[in-house]
Amino acid sequence: MNQEKNKIEKLCINNLRMLAADMVEKARSGHPGMPMGAAAMAFVLWTRFLKHSPANPAWPNRDRFVLSAGHGSSLLYALLHLTGYDLPLEELENFRQRGSRTPGHPEFGHTPGVEVTTGPLGQGIANAVGMAIAERYQASFFNRPLYDIVDHYTYVIAGDGDLMEGVSHEAASLAGHLKLGRLICLYDDNRISIEGSTGMAFTEDRAGRFAAYKWHVQRVDDGNDTESLAAAIRAAQAEKEKPSLILVRTHIGYGSPNKQDTPSAHGEPLGAEEMKLTREALGWPQEPFYVDRQVRDYFSRAVEKGKSLEEKWQNLFNSYAASFPELAGLYRQWMKGQPAAGWDKDIPSFPADEKGMATRAASGTALNAIAAGLPNLIGGSADLAPSTKTIIKGGGDFGPDSYSGRNLRFGVREHGMGSILNGMALAGGLIPYGATFLVFSDYMRPSLRMAAMMGLKVIYVFTHDSIGVGEDGPTHQPIEQLAALRAIPGLTVIRPADANETAEAWRCAIGQVKGPAALILTRQNLPTLDRQKLAPAEGLSRGAYILYETEGRGPDVILLATGSEVHLAMGAANKLQKSGIAARVVSMPSWELFEAQPIEYRNAVLPPHITARVAVEAGITLGWRHYAGERGRIIGIDRFGASAPAGALFKEFGFTVENIVANAMQTLDITPCG
Amino acid sequence: MNQEKNKIEKLCINNLRMLAADMVEKARSGHPGMPMGAAAMAFVLWTRFLKHSPANPAWPNRDRFVLSAGHGSSLLYALLHLTGYDLPLEELENFRQRGSRTPGHPEFGHTPGVEVTTGPLGQGIANAVGMAIAERYQASFFNRPLYDIVDHYTYVIAGDGDLMEGVSHEAASLAGHLKLGRLICLYDDNRISIEGSTGMAFTEDRAGRFAAYKWHVQRVDDGNDTESLAAAIRAAQAEKEKPSLILVRTHIGYGSPNKQDTPSAHGEPLGAEEMKLTREALGWPQEPFYVDRQVRDYFSRAVEKGKSLEEKWQNLFNSYAASFPELAGLYRQWMKGQPAAGWDKDIPSFPADEKGMATRAASGTALNAIAAGLPNLIGGSADLAPSTKTIIKGGGDFGPDSYSGRNLRFGVREHGMGSILNGMALAGGLIPYGATFLVFSDYMRPSLRMAAMMGLKVIYVFTHDSIGVGEDGPTHQPIEQLAALRAIPGLTVIRPADANETAEAWRCAIGQVKGPAALILTRQNLPTLDRQKLAPAEGLSRGAYILYETEGRGPDVILLATGSEVHLAMGAANKLQKSGIAARVVSMPSWELFEAQPIEYRNAVLPPHITARVAVEAGITLGWRHYAGERGRIIGIDRFGASAPAGALFKEFGFTVENIVANAMQTLDITPCG
Repeated sequence: MNQEKNKIEKLCINNLRMLAADMVEKARSGHPGMPMGAAAMAFVLWTRFLKHSPANPAWPNRDRFVLSAGHGSSLLYALLHLTGYDLPLEELENFRQRGSRTPGHPEFGHTPGVEVTTGPLGQGIANAVGMAIAERYQASFFNRPLYDIVDHYTYVIAGDGDLMEGVSHEAASLAGHLKLGRLICLYDDNRISIEGSTGMAFTEDRAGRFAAYKWHVQRVDDGNDTESLAAAIRAAQAEKEKPSLILVRTHIGYGSPNKQDTPSAHGEPLGAEEMKLTREALGWPQEPFYVDRQVRDYFSRAVEKGKSLEEKWQNLFNSYAASFPELAGLYRQWMKGQPAAGWDKDIPSFPADEKGMATRAASGTALNAIAAGLPNLIGGSADLAPSTKTIIKGGGDFGPDSYSGRNLRFGVREHGMGSILNGMALAGGLIPYGATFLVFSDYMRPSLRMAAMMGLKVIYVFTHDSIGVGEDGPTHQPIEQLAALRAIPGLTVIRPADANETAEAWRCAIGQVKGPAALILTRQNLPTLDRQKLAPAEGLSRGAYILYETEGRGPDVILLATGSEVHLAMGAANKLQKSGIAARVVSMPSWELFEAQPIEYRNAVLPPHITARVAVEAGITLGWRHYAGERGRIIGIDRFGASAPAGALFKEFGFTVENIVANAMQTLDITPCG
Repeated sequence: MNQEKNKIEKLCINNLRMLAADMVEKARSGHPGMPMGAAAMAFVLWTRFLKHSPANPAWPNRDRFVLSAGHGSSLLYALLHLTGYDLPLEELENFRQRGSRTPGHPEFGHTPGVEVTTGPLGQGIANAVGMAIAERYQASFFNRPLYDIVDHYTYVIAGDGDLMEGVSHEAASLAGHLKLGRLICLYDDNRISIEGSTGMAFTEDRAGRFAAYKWHVQRVDDGNDTESLAAAIRAAQAEKEKPSLILVRTHIGYGSPNKQDTPSAHGEPLGAEEMKLTREALGWPQEPFYVDRQVRDYFSRAVEKGKSLEEKWQNLFNSYAASFPELAGLYRQWMKGQPAAGWDKDIPSFPADEKGMATRAASGTALNAIAAGLPNLIGGSADLAPSTKTIIKGGGDFGPDSYSGRNLRFGVREHGMGSILNGMALAGGLIPYGATFLVFSDYMRPSLRMAAMMGLKVIYVFTHDSIGVGEDGPTHQPIEQLAALRAIPGLTVIRPADANETAEAWRCAIGQVKGPAALILTRQNLPTLDRQKLAPAEGLSRGAYILYETEGRGPDVILLATGSEVHLAMGAANKLQKSGIAARVVSMPSWELFEAQPIEYRNAVLPPHITARVAVEAGITLGWRHYAGERGRIIGIDRFGASAPAGALFKEFGFTVENIVANAMQTLDITPCG
């Protein structure tokens, strides 16, 4: 290799190392070791391969880069700064401080060029799988001969922790199955984790494992050898069918004389003395946040290069738009992230019907009605599609034989599914959904949290929502999941009461809710309420609404319920009425939507002076006191369920009209007679 | 093979099939396909290999059997019935009905011979890894030359879903690392999942994957070939170092002419007509729940064989007890599941100290003090031991070179850790603990739920418990986790306020709490409260106690807080006092322990007539209304955190003495002046 080139490359790599270490040192907090070890692979990837436009981080055909090892954030910030993103040096100096654009772990929406919030390990790889799926789906949808409008790679840098986490297994196995050849993962194989050598707990044959997933696997034995790194990435690009894993042998804290290859380089500043020694060892000036002029020049070529790449693509797109105006319009529409006007015109309404249907069934109908006019709605289930009713009929399966399919087959991989959905949403253009039983939302909880934190539009279809599951028993009966989902800030939880509320829930999740939404649906049939006699289901969009009340005078008692229990509340209201008690039934499908209403509305639905209230939900009572009030009564189930037919369980656990009536009487201080 | 033997084996296997199918048919609910496909491997394992004693399911040296594919419960019930466990035929006829001992999925503690509750996929494999770890630790601890007191295998039957779930990856990778040669997993490779062929989503090379985990891998191409099955199990036993996976090619719904090899055999009854055809195809009488007499004789030999195995072991143990009376005494003690008297005598008490220490540090001290006298306390961390302070000093590492080590190195595998801990607890004799950051409790939530459902004594050490995490930012700051853990029925959550409460929390978790307990601990230092001036930390055991109150008259206002916020409440009480307001500070480390107190105690701590209350906790407010009351105020954080030094965050989000004082004033309708 050309000596001059060698020299400048070394300078660039060491500058990345020292900027990252300086950031951690100044913040007195952070992870210097990973950036110092992985600087060379990051340099090669970002300067020779990554197609991006620092002046326009939102250029839709950019390559995606995921730092799955999110604790190495300072490396990413150094790259963003040097390649010309809007991230001035002062931001690097302000690492991990309140108000800075350089938080401890990369945060999507917070820092230009950060594609995804990472830190909780393993998920980044799965996010990248989602991005690669999105790329293939959109390529299949939009590209036409000579017009590869959608045409990019997804790159990941992952560490030991990422590979140990189960979610990486789930996502990688699926990626191999789907033949996502444009997914390239650089594995920072530094053999050190927090407790010490990975030899303590992680001795699997990682290459063999990914080969078993049908990935293309390469090794780079010297993680500082830029030519080997480049050759490996080129070979990975050349492999069209298999996703690629490149095991890059690196050294954590590279350059630090006393901390390299030790866990102490992982998660704390090197310290003033060791910083000094490291600078000396790398032949680096002692000045903190020093950026070599040659280095700045070298990296900053990315701006012009990016503009030129983008311009070239824009020209292609313009010509594409001339040939395929409709497709081009749709592409622009998708990228806006808002569904086209009228997208919801075909959402069905369901006639009153005492026998009714399960809300999962109504959901399947609504989903299909929407999907017909919204081709960027795409999703699937964790091997429960027949039960969750989430197949888009005629949509075909997304798979290696056809990336135009809209039904994703995630396999029994809930966490992988959740993180993949996040990646699909992050990629832009798609509205992804995923389905499983409500009880298994636990398996994917870490990804739900990240969707909420990033404010991603992802729709979860969680069916089999209570002891109504019946015979499958306590392992399959969600009890605490509703409360646990409501606990996640930024997640909108909606539990509709009948077919029409279910249709409205879909309308709301796609049209109104900003972040992720979870639809909570029954396995069992529910009556379809007669909306000619009762309030319209559109009330769902306000979170809670007066479904029914005894005519004539203000209510004596308010019955609040969600989902399947709304029907019991209706039955109770009728009975109470016969005893001369005026009852109001409030259907309360979503706490989050209700809390977003003005106080006047909330007080109209739940007038503070009406303290006789009964709240009914087939889940734990946690949180209901807030709505039931001190005097109110709460009918819930604060234990695990049991295996038996659903009807028997509802009775045993007090979810009956009679029990609601009795509780209403008690809250009114009336002793029921007869 | 002997023709007679062949015939009786076939009869036995078909009887298993038909009993299982009959159960599902009669219940009109369940999963007939797995039992029908896997009957032969179950037969071979249970009749030729499994060391167990149906007359005494608790015999400690029995082999452990885990049906990871828990939906195949009817197969397990058929086996238990036929081999002579206390599970009469009427129980099989009462499958999935309320009050039966044959619930939809196997439930530990509910049915004799069921070793673990399974159903949520993947976890069973990890439970088995935990059991195999427990066996090796106890063998290492108790066995002496000529006395292999602890000496058994752990067997698993797992399905496609189990292998797809990430938790199976985590646990299997660790099992290979740990060289758990006595773990033998039969994989029911039927290639059908709920959505259809596993070819739709699961095409990884499973054999290659497990080989990469350093397992011993074999294939049996005909899952009905009993001799091949037996040969494979023998070879697995002969392999001493590697855990074994045997891929057994089976056919879901075997014997059903129209449903075999289809997803419709998976999760619903075959139906009357198909049942009839299946009986015909298998040459089976049409009588439901028919048990062939020869079959009954053949299986029931297990009773005598088990008694003889147990007797032999008991003789060995008696002779061992004569030679090693102390060890034998300890063994009996461990198996009782209660710590020996005086186990807690060395739990430290900490002197008052304004600077204090982090509760994670106090926890490390307490853990080590207890561990010295309690050698069956064993655990570890998901690669965060230095941060969670969970190393037992001098305890050594549990690993292939030494199974006497007490420190488990789980790697970055929280879910695997959780399910392994469950297996260790189920094995009997051990008190396992596991540690990670509180925010990552999300990753292991499915296993927490199972621990709670089974009532297992597992202790979770969750540190870095709030925005006090600081610079690592929102991905690492738990906000909703406390509430989400409290939501799990049967899990006791304890968030101590200082070093002494932390010591009490350990005492309580081991001595008092029946099921699993989660200790919620700070990263940051907290003052050690002066217990000579304040109430003793033993109050923790009652969940909430009056830590302090203004002398002289009953309180005007109650300040409730947990963990680090108790110190802010103390500061606020002092300030309020100076303004002439009498305040009571209630330290409330555990809602669950408090709710278990008699109403008199609860009313004494939180008198209903004192409605001026302020609750403070650095987490979401969900559920606090129950204790704060309608008039009370709640200081919490109902959004994700941010990356910044912890002090700045506490201030920004209102966790300050001043804000508590202001809220107390407001709840008292006093406008604060100055």
